[in-house]
Amino acid sequence: MARLMEVTFLGTGSANPTPNKAASSIVLRYGDDLWMFDCGEGTQTQVMKSSLKAGKITKIFITHLHGDHLYGLSGLLCTISQSNQRTEPVSIYGPLGLAKFIRVSLGLSRSELCFRFKVIELQPTDDMLKIDDARLCNISSTDTPVLHPCEDEGRIVHHTMVEGVPVWTLLDTGPLKVRAGKLDHRIPSFAFIMQEDMLPATLSVEKLREFGFEPGPICAKLRAGESIKTPTGVSVTLSDVLGCTHPGRKVVICGDSCESSAIASIAKDADIYIHEATLQNSLRETAVERGHSTPQMAAQFALQACARFLYLTHFSQRYTESSRKKKEFTVKDLQKEAQQVFGPNCAVAQDMLTFTVKPPK
Amino acid sequence: MARLMEVTFLGTGSANPTPNKAASSIVLRYGDDLWMFDCGEGTQTQVMKSSLKAGKITKIFITHLHGDHLYGLSGLLCTISQSNQRTEPVSIYGPLGLAKFIRVSLGLSRSELCFRFKVIELQPTDDMLKIDDARLCNISSTDTPVLHPCEDEGRIVHHTMVEGVPVWTLLDTGPLKVRAGKLDHRIPSFAFIMQEDMLPATLSVEKLREFGFEPGPICAKLRAGESIKTPTGVSVTLSDVLGCTHPGRKVVICGDSCESSAIASIAKDADIYIHEATLQNSLRETAVERGHSTPQMAAQFALQACARFLYLTHFSQRYTESSRKKKEFTVKDLQKEAQQVFGPNCAVAQDMLTFTVKPPK
Repeated sequence: MARLMEVTFLGTGSANPTPNKAASSIVLRYGDDLWMFDCGEGTQTQVMKSSLKAGKITKIFITHLHGDHLYGLSGLLCTISQSNQRTEPVSIYGPLGLAKFIRVSLGLSRSELCFRFKVIELQPTDDMLKIDDARLCNISSTDTPVLHPCEDEGRIVHHTMVEGVPVWTLLDTGPLKVRAGKLDHRIPSFAFIMQEDMLPATLSVEKLREFGFEPGPICAKLRAGESIKTPTGVSVTLSDVLGCTHPGRKVVICGDSCESSAIASIAKDADIYIHEATLQNSLRETAVERGHSTPQMAAQFALQACARFLYLTHFSQRYTESSRKKKEFTVKDLQKEAQQVFGPNCAVAQDMLTFTVKPPK
Repeated sequence: MARLMEVTFLGTGSANPTPNKAASSIVLRYGDDLWMFDCGEGTQTQVMKSSLKAGKITKIFITHLHGDHLYGLSGLLCTISQSNQRTEPVSIYGPLGLAKFIRVSLGLSRSELCFRFKVIELQPTDDMLKIDDARLCNISSTDTPVLHPCEDEGRIVHHTMVEGVPVWTLLDTGPLKVRAGKLDHRIPSFAFIMQEDMLPATLSVEKLREFGFEPGPICAKLRAGESIKTPTGVSVTLSDVLGCTHPGRKVVICGDSCESSAIASIAKDADIYIHEATLQNSLRETAVERGHSTPQMAAQFALQACARFLYLTHFSQRYTESSRKKKEFTVKDLQKEAQQVFGPNCAVAQDMLTFTVKPPK
């Protein structure tokens, strides 16, 4: 049986969180584990409103260090620690500088955690660093050498070139591998690509019938390792009636971006491709100037990656769910703009939306 | 006319914010200015839910650096900056270490602000520093020497001894003076004492009648500087009919504390005294162990300061507004516990509660 895989949008707003559209955060449930992607201010309250348990979070991925994707992280870590006496460690992945943010904010607030954590930082490529970086922020790996008392030594991950594009390999053990790819935003921003291993073959009703059996109690016997005789005396075991193996599921979660072509190859054939669409098509120029995308742009990036389903998120607060005035642009209009390019397999996210990522048939 | 003075509780929870009780934040409105006291995670969303305008905030005071009083600060500053193109500077007051928190979080998130800000840090007394401080947090004034590009040089305020207790003088110009006093908590924690200047005398109806006049259009003439003749020919001007001057209003806002006796003298005769009451009286031992107060303790501290009205806040999330089960302790029960000691002039705060601080009659 494939593990349950579910995506929950906790916050689908951009820049300023509001009571209706919280700051960015997405949770990927995989079996019993919860992995969080981005943690804007107020995310811990959004977790409380959902059916998710903060104490089940084992990994947190931060796409980029803008406040609406980051400022809820320290509070969430404190809440995970207070909400139950878990001891399982938490791994936190994100751009270089993330460790310093965590150390300083947990340190100055004298926050102890009841679990260990480590920070795995992605070293951006030189072309991801913008001219403002040095002026606004001095990130040096040596200026916060002191680990938090609950922190284990992490590491810095450098990219390797794969098919001409930079790839950061974050997790290459376990049933769900994680790599990161390069986006283009005002500050270094990443997409995370989760690839499940090949799914084991399951019992094929078709093959069962080829032996003259009908599905029923016989399936349980075969799964339990028994061998069954056909009326003609042939001995049948589970391996005789297994179907094909299937490629595992692939989920891509992008940070803010106005140019996501560089992930097309590593995101290829994504079952779910989640991309921002901050502003409507007619505001493309403003969007790109701010490092953001329109629905049309998001759809084009998803098409490049041959994605099966596209979810849009990270909407400007100007877009309401439904229009109060006739001419007002709504989130549903953003969906229409994406569908014009991508076709019907495309939807807009909203806070608390959960969907299941089904295994291929 | 005295300026309008109003207090709004934006968040009345403790430790973990929930959808019903947000993390700590209080706003004091004084005329057109808004001053914020503490800024827990999610405060910017609470401002949006209220009738207050984030862009009107000119001063922010942080009582102590625990996350539930601090983690919303960077997000709020970004929102003030984005919500309107204000250019008026913001002064931020709080314990030593606050500047580092702001510089690192704004810096790493590459946040530019459209206004200037400066940080005025309070140097705690040696006895306010706890044994855990050095282990959890290395605050050195020299390890973040670089100002944020939008930051003006602030200063560090040391205490002076006044009547045997340490006092930090933060603001000694303008109509509302601010001093801070020492509390006892797990980390350095302060109370802020706002003292309004003497209120100017206003026209006394009694004195008017002594001259044989009745209130009416004559008042406007006197206020406009005219002199009026009585039937007996005596010339009367405004100064002849003014009543007494009154001491200005005094508001005390305390951070987390299990021992607030040290502010009794500087908080003396407070019109409004706001103190935490995290846990009920029967949990006093647990409360004190965690550096917190019960309603009884809060009432005793308010009595020591001869406060006129006590507001309780910072309630454990276990207390609901009204009981679902008969034996469940509610926020109203906390109020009763305080009233047993302090009398009827005592109330419990709740998120979005606003009250006016009236000038004395």
